[in-house]
Order: sequence, then C-alpha cells, then structure tokens
Amino acid sequence: MTHRVAILGATGAVGGTMVRVLEERAYPLTDLVLLSTQRSAGRRIAFRGREIEVREAAPDAFAGVDVALFSAGAGASREWAPHARAHGATVIDNSQAFRLDDGVPLVVPEVNPAALVDHGGLIANPNCSTIQLVLALAPLHRAWGLERVVVATYQSVSGTGAEALEELDAEIAADRDGTTYTPRVYAHPVAYNVIPHVDDALDGGSCREEMKLVWESRKILGLPELRLAATTVRVPVRVAHSEAVAIEFARRPDPDEARRILASAPGVAVVDDPSLHAYPTPLAAAGRDEAFVGRIRRDPSHEKGLLLFIACDNLRKGAALNAVQIAETLRRPAGVVPAS
Amino acid sequence: MTHRVAILGATGAVGGTMVRVLEERAYPLTDLVLLSTQRSAGRRIAFRGREIEVREAAPDAFAGVDVALFSAGAGASREWAPHARAHGATVIDNSQAFRLDDGVPLVVPEVNPAALVDHGGLIANPNCSTIQLVLALAPLHRAWGLERVVVATYQSVSGTGAEALEELDAEIAADRDGTTYTPRVYAHPVAYNVIPHVDDALDGGSCREEMKLVWESRKILGLPELRLAATTVRVPVRVAHSEAVAIEFARRPDPDEARRILASAPGVAVVDDPSLHAYPTPLAAAGRDEAFVGRIRRDPSHEKGLLLFIACDNLRKGAALNAVQIAETLRRPAGVVPAS
Repeated sequence: MTHRVAILGATGAVGGTMVRVLEERAYPLTDLVLLSTQRSAGRRIAFRGREIEVREAAPDAFAGVDVALFSAGAGASREWAPHARAHGATVIDNSQAFRLDDGVPLVVPEVNPAALVDHGGLIANPNCSTIQLVLALAPLHRAWGLERVVVATYQSVSGTGAEALEELDAEIAADRDGTTYTPRVYAHPVAYNVIPHVDDALDGGSCREEMKLVWESRKILGLPELRLAATTVRVPVRVAHSEAVAIEFARRPDPDEARRILASAPGVAVVDDPSLHAYPTPLAAAGRDEAFVGRIRRDPSHEKGLLLFIACDNLRKGAALNAVQIAETLRRPAGVVPAS
Repeated sequence: MTHRVAILGATGAVGGTMVRVLEERAYPLTDLVLLSTQRSAGRRIAFRGREIEVREAAPDAFAGVDVALFSAGAGASREWAPHARAHGATVIDNSQAFRLDDGVPLVVPEVNPAALVDHGGLIANPNCSTIQLVLALAPLHRAWGLERVVVATYQSVSGTGAEALEELDAEIAADRDGTTYTPRVYAHPVAYNVIPHVDDALDGGSCREEMKLVWESRKILGLPELRLAATTVRVPVRVAHSEAVAIEFARRPDPDEARRILASAPGVAVVDDPSLHAYPTPLAAAGRDEAFVGRIRRDPSHEKGLLLFIACDNLRKGAALNAVQIAETLRRPAGVVPAS
C-alpha cells in the first residue's frame, strides 16, 4: 500500500525539520514529495540515503498525496490547501491560516487527539509557543482546574525562520568586527538584545503572538473562557522557546504533586533541581522532542498559584514533530496517543 | 569646603560606572578615593582628565571620607562598612548585606527619599531588578492601589560582573570557531541560551534574586504585605535588564492614563507605540539613565490588571546612578528628589 507525503515549504527551517523528523521516526511513507516556492525549487534535500529535488508547488504536485504537511506561511496555505484537498490529501497546516476556523481541529496529539475525529481533510498545527504551554497546562488542569495563566516568553529566532538565524549571526559578526549591520528581519537588533514584540501589532496594545497564545490555548484545552495573559519576547537564542508561567487554579496545587503529574505526562520531561543547577534551558531543549518543565514552585503571591518554566524545541515539538505526530495519530486506532 | 568620596570596588563593572556617573553629573566632590581588593590595586582609572590610582582597601583609607560608595560584594561590605563609619563616612552600599536590616534605609530617591531621614551613616542601594520595577510601580500604586505583581525578568550578564561579560564573549567566540568553552561564571552557557535561575537556590524552589524582588519592593514601597511573584532569568544581553510585568490593582486601571502617569514620573520614560516598533529594549536602554516602560496594555485575563514591559541599564540606574543619586539627595534640602 502506498502512502505519499508532501511537504510544502521544504526548504524552510520548519520544513527541513519535518524531513528530518520523518526520517528519524521511520514514518511509514512510500514516497516523499518536497515542494517550495519558485525561488527555492531545484534544491536537493537528503532523505533516507538519497536526495530529493524540491519542486515548485503546482496544483498537480498534490496528485496521489495522502498527507500534505504545510509550512510555507499563511498565504501559501490558503492558496494550496484547496488543491491538496481536491486531490484527496489530508492537509496538516502549520500556519495560522485556519487555526481558529470552526470545524478545523487544532491539535496537540498528547492533549486533544479526540479533536481529530471528523477532521474533514484539514487539520491545523498550533503555534509553537502554544504547544509547549498546553502540554504542561493540560495535566495540571485535570488535577486542580485552571483559572488563570500569566506567561512571559523567551522565543528563539528560528521561530521567525532561517533568515532570522542568519540575521543573528550577521549581527554578532558585525559586533565583533566593529562594522554596522542594519536589521532586515526584525525592527531592532536581536543580538545582545531582547525584542518585546512578536508578530503584528494589534489594537489594544497586544501583539498577535500574545493573542495566539490566548485563542489557541482556549481551543486546544476546550476552555473557551480561560483567562490568559501573555507577553511575547524574542531573545538571541537559535532554537527552542522558553516560557515563565504563573498559573492560578481552582484548587490549591502542590509542587511535589505537580512534578509527579508532569513527569508522567506525555510529551513532558521534568528537569527540576535548582540546587544542582538543574532546570530547563533552550540550549539543552534544542534537538529534543519533549517540553522540559522545571522551576516548579508555589506562587508566593497567590494561595492557589504555581510557578514554572518551560523550554521546548520550537522547530520540533513546536512545529514539525507535532505535525508528524498528527499524521501518525491519524493512522492509528482512534484515541491512541503517539509516543513522544 | 572639602567633600571626599570613596568607591570600594572601583575596578568592577558597577564601580567603574560609578566613576563615570560622578564625572558626567559633575558631582561636587573635591577628592575621589578609589579602593579595591589587593588583586586589582595599582590600576589607574581616568577621572576629570587625570588618572587616579586604585589603592588596596585598608582601615585608614577611609580617613576624611564623607561618602563611601560600596560595590565589592556583601562580604567586603560587612568587612569595611564599620571602618568607613568609624571615620565618619556615610556608606551607600550596593550589596545585599544590609538591605533588609531594620534601621537601614533602602532607597530609590524618586520613590522613597523620605527614608533617608535618620539614616545613621549606612544606606542600602536596592538590587538592580528591584529599582527599575519600583520606579514604574510606585506612581501606578498611587493611582490605583497595588494588589499583586507577577514579574518575569530578562537580566543582562553585566549584573553578574565583568567576568560574566568576558564569559559571554568567550562562548560566542568558541561557537564561531567550533571550539569548546567550559562555563566558569554560570552553571550553563549563557550565549545563545537563557538561564532561568539567578543567585542562590533557596528552600521552596525560589532563587534569591526572585525573593530580593519580593522583599526589597515591599520595603521600598512601604507595602509589607505586597503580593509579588518573580521568575528571574539571565539572557545573553551585555547591559540592561528587562522585565515583563503583570500588575493587579485595587481599582480598574486605564492604559492611556498609565502612560500619562509614567511619562511624568521621575526616572521613567515611556516608549510605547508598537505599530511603529517603539517599545523598550535593553540595547536602547544601555547607557541611559531612565527606566523605559512600554507595551502598556490591559491584562486580558484580569479586570483590574495592567501589563507592561520595562528596560533599564542595570549598571547605571540599577546600581551606580542610584547610589550617586542617594549621595546627591543627602546633600539637598530634605524632600527634594534629584533629577534623573
């Protein structure tokens, strides 16, 4: 039986990670189609010991495709999803194009796999900073009932894309050489700096990344009234996002019990012994599959509060891995959560 | 009339900034004594067009000193404060040695100058991350009444000292050259990373920097019951700390009014137009005197909540400048706040 997978945006930071994740996990595909815009077509990407040429996206490129993993931006998703679906492919879309649409499941397989039932051929992959947050929130919610969440993020430049990784390197080289580099990707230098604004500015003073955390967490957790506040900040880290999280529950939480709950939660690993310098860092999380959680402690400012810190590879679990896990879940008996 | 100033720790990151701040502000001293440990004695530091040799600290080094600015760590402060005071000097101490002692004023001149009355010859300079926080909190408290504060910090390596600046550079050079650098100052690499732990690990899972924010903010603001939670995180920034702050008030705040209040607050500058990419960043705050506040907006998760972001030079207002402003305030008629 053939199982053909296509990746749209194969030359990007997330698309390249999708290729690696499919290979690492021995995803049972028989054919891999790599697609991109015209600009990147013709490049060759290694997969399972051979090289696959990246083709320019075109309507007939989706012929015979069973699963199409999209990571080429919201515009490309809107343009190409109808073609892929017309060819019978199930689209798993990493952009923000469809995430909040009624009838489009927004899925973290460890958290809400049941949402995949009746997906109608289009499934949205959540935003990277949302995925790692809900992985930690969901099991704690079952224990004590989420009331309110306050998040501050430390987001790596790879979340913006490969060009932002180059910009960080160029800024650091210019700093070393005493030359000038004018930022092109970000509005401010990101090297030796933090930029407290991610994605578009919205009315009311929030940026879109902050509201993605609100809207998407509510949808994934099935808590449409969840109170959540976020400040999203870019930091000069290459890969892996971090989050400082203050959670208020309906019932009084216990830090030791939280550690036990999180240690057994799928997709989560606890790293939490500050006296031995053990806590999550993005450098240690990069290249790993889990959301690492630590600094778990009582909130000294709230009777029913808990504080914690999360670090997770934004390209893997925050994007490529989660998309591949969705594809894996679709091929499994209903309700079975894939291994992280 | 003579006015002799001594700096203990003159060769450190903060001590060096103290020398520059005294010069920039034309502080009315007639004699500057630069002191250090034996290791750094003999170095020469420029001040007002001449060079001053750094001397090793000794009891008689404080003879005739009117104001002694200490920034050589808590151990040195405990050792040398009695000698300086015995010579009649007023000690303004930047370490954590005396900050929480009863009878020792802990002062941010724009916030609680009245605490300088009856100082008894020893005044504590608050922790860098506390100073920038209370500069923003104090005027907002007067407007709406503080109830609870949740802070996540983005702290520069210069807060650790000159050796941490060197470590960041060494790690970036090793990354570029493909060589290995083993961290000496921090427990983990700080280049291309964030470290969610600052200062010692305490019982209960907090680190000391987090509790400094709690304890010192309460003392400076005169709110011994203030509820405050902090997560303190080191980031690969050279100078200036940043803070994402969620504030709950007794009365409903208004973001526009908050902008007006903060724009006229001493020591604070508002930078807040995200649609024009205007918000505080540490790179822009470094070398400046003000605490820059932006990203001021309603908290979507709390009816009486306000969110904001602060960036401030931790060596200047967070340490050296605040200490010099304390000295200036002591020489002024009571109740007059120095210009920032």
